[in-house]
Amino acid sequence: MPFFASHWISLCLCVSVAGGNVLGVPLPEHQLIARIRRAAGKSRAVIAGVGDDAAILRPPAGHELLVTTDLSLEGVHFRREWHPPESVGHRVLARGLSDIAAMGGEPIAAFLSLAVPAETPQKWMDGFLAGFTRLARRFRVPLAGGDTGENPEGIVADIVVVGSVPRGKALLRSGARAGDGIYVTGELGRAAAVLHRLEGGGFVVKADGRGRPSLPRAKDLAPHFFPEPRLQTGRRLRGLASSAIDVSDGLSTDLAHICEESGVAAVIHEHSIPRGVSFTGSSLHFALHGGEDYELLFTAPPRARVPARLGGVRVTRIGQVLPPGRAKSPLLYLADSHGQRKPLVPAGWQHFGK
Amino acid sequence: MPFFASHWISLCLCVSVAGGNVLGVPLPEHQLIARIRRAAGKSRAVIAGVGDDAAILRPPAGHELLVTTDLSLEGVHFRREWHPPESVGHRVLARGLSDIAAMGGEPIAAFLSLAVPAETPQKWMDGFLAGFTRLARRFRVPLAGGDTGENPEGIVADIVVVGSVPRGKALLRSGARAGDGIYVTGELGRAAAVLHRLEGGGFVVKADGRGRPSLPRAKDLAPHFFPEPRLQTGRRLRGLASSAIDVSDGLSTDLAHICEESGVAAVIHEHSIPRGVSFTGSSLHFALHGGEDYELLFTAPPRARVPARLGGVRVTRIGQVLPPGRAKSPLLYLADSHGQRKPLVPAGWQHFGK
Repeated sequence: MPFFASHWISLCLCVSVAGGNVLGVPLPEHQLIARIRRAAGKSRAVIAGVGDDAAILRPPAGHELLVTTDLSLEGVHFRREWHPPESVGHRVLARGLSDIAAMGGEPIAAFLSLAVPAETPQKWMDGFLAGFTRLARRFRVPLAGGDTGENPEGIVADIVVVGSVPRGKALLRSGARAGDGIYVTGELGRAAAVLHRLEGGGFVVKADGRGRPSLPRAKDLAPHFFPEPRLQTGRRLRGLASSAIDVSDGLSTDLAHICEESGVAAVIHEHSIPRGVSFTGSSLHFALHGGEDYELLFTAPPRARVPARLGGVRVTRIGQVLPPGRAKSPLLYLADSHGQRKPLVPAGWQHFGK
Repeated sequence: MPFFASHWISLCLCVSVAGGNVLGVPLPEHQLIARIRRAAGKSRAVIAGVGDDAAILRPPAGHELLVTTDLSLEGVHFRREWHPPESVGHRVLARGLSDIAAMGGEPIAAFLSLAVPAETPQKWMDGFLAGFTRLARRFRVPLAGGDTGENPEGIVADIVVVGSVPRGKALLRSGARAGDGIYVTGELGRAAAVLHRLEGGGFVVKADGRGRPSLPRAKDLAPHFFPEPRLQTGRRLRGLASSAIDVSDGLSTDLAHICEESGVAAVIHEHSIPRGVSFTGSSLHFALHGGEDYELLFTAPPRARVPARLGGVRVTRIGQVLPPGRAKSPLLYLADSHGQRKPLVPAGWQHFGK
């Protein structure tokens, strides 16, 4: 049996019947249900959400359905001592939305399964839901269901986003062809720079050039704590891109996925990679291998006219698709400013804690 | 980024790149991927499954979509010392399929997110997948995606089942009306009887009537270890039932859900409840409050002709829907063989470990 439908409610029934509280949440059950139902949002495509064995969705006529699911694990994808709960809620949903963006789709509804330790404070839950809901509202994605439970050792959130795309128009990883240009949105490496700083002990107050106390600016922190799914850009890529993926594991690893699925190789021009400049300076390593940028990486045929901006974000051409090499030859090459190519080993971001 | 698509594969890339093995699985990555892809199955409704940012589904024309999600947590929904891995895999999927059955739907595809401790043996993973896959094949439900990760303290499985139902034909909890009959499929309480025995120390060899060693029969164990989702029955209920739910929390609690969503009350006739007779005898308590039967509980209008069997399973009339009582009056009543009614407090099954 699922929840909001039944589970969040049945958990709450358990509270009244057994006096126990599975979530360790101090709110009375009816308030909790009301809060979830308010957070759930509304949409014409969601015929029935919270309140039955399954949600009922009505995707637009002539559309195919997209379904993506992403696990977020405490200690692997986030840490409570590093990430405020609003950031965790935002990131959980952003991962799913970014997958829909990479397919060129529109999100229809989200489903959240959440297992938390019994002692999780209500304040944490509220912050998580606030971060989740703020992003959901911005992209008009109702929360149509999910499940809850207790996991003694840490928070586990599984996000499912259901979306739709006009029939046959989904952007696949498998469509890249030799000669296609390789493009990326926005700037790469900024999320990894923040993570690197967190791993190195976090943010300390420094004196700026004029001797005033200084911390990183919100815009430098946002790419890691509140990444932006590129839904508008993804939609604009339909009919333009030959393949697409979101940069979640890192440029090198995600480009390797495109090459594998398309049966091609690729060269990236080192100097053309749009590196994010932030408090850490700009790092080629983070831009190449840093994960969680949630920018879109795509290919487009040689004659395609790719605008310099798409859906409000800059687009940069960074390389070219090559014919497949022989067996065991490299998938990826990095070219320097003289055009010298050397093999590039995919070394995408490892979840921290590994 | 999701998996089979990307994650199971990217986990495997991590293996080759970093020499670590997120799942603690001794199989080489390509074998693991091949195994998952084989397990994935095929379907005309699944245009693209394992291998991209999201799966692409094409539900039948004129159908609405059903989405259900259920968390299964080690120590809450199963225990490795009690449940063989095949049973865990089966039960994880059966929970989702049962929700689709309760809506009168057809399953289209399943998505599995699975987090396991690093030391989980490959043998356990194989058993889990075997149990999952056997049930998926029986009902022709391809595994179209999911995600994986590491959870140090226990196994967490989140199952999503996407299904479809002809537009406007979904069975809701909210359609019961005063005067409707209340019906249930199969027999109730057998899964709870097995659970009760497990909680009491498990199964020991006993002497039977003729002094021969004896253990419970497979058919007595199956309702708990390998419950049967009533998909065929659910489909037959379209246009016949006024409301439906699956008995996952227990008859009393699940009937209360129908009453709450429909704004009605209900009376059950004690003597008419089909109690499962097994090694524990037949217990009214387990039949009323035992969870995880995964039978269907439904209501049908007074003039509906409800067959004695539906989709290969017996159907029993157990009570009647009543008009709503005054505020705070009981939702449920239990009538004895003399027609004497007493209030019935919903006391559905508590997940063990609580």
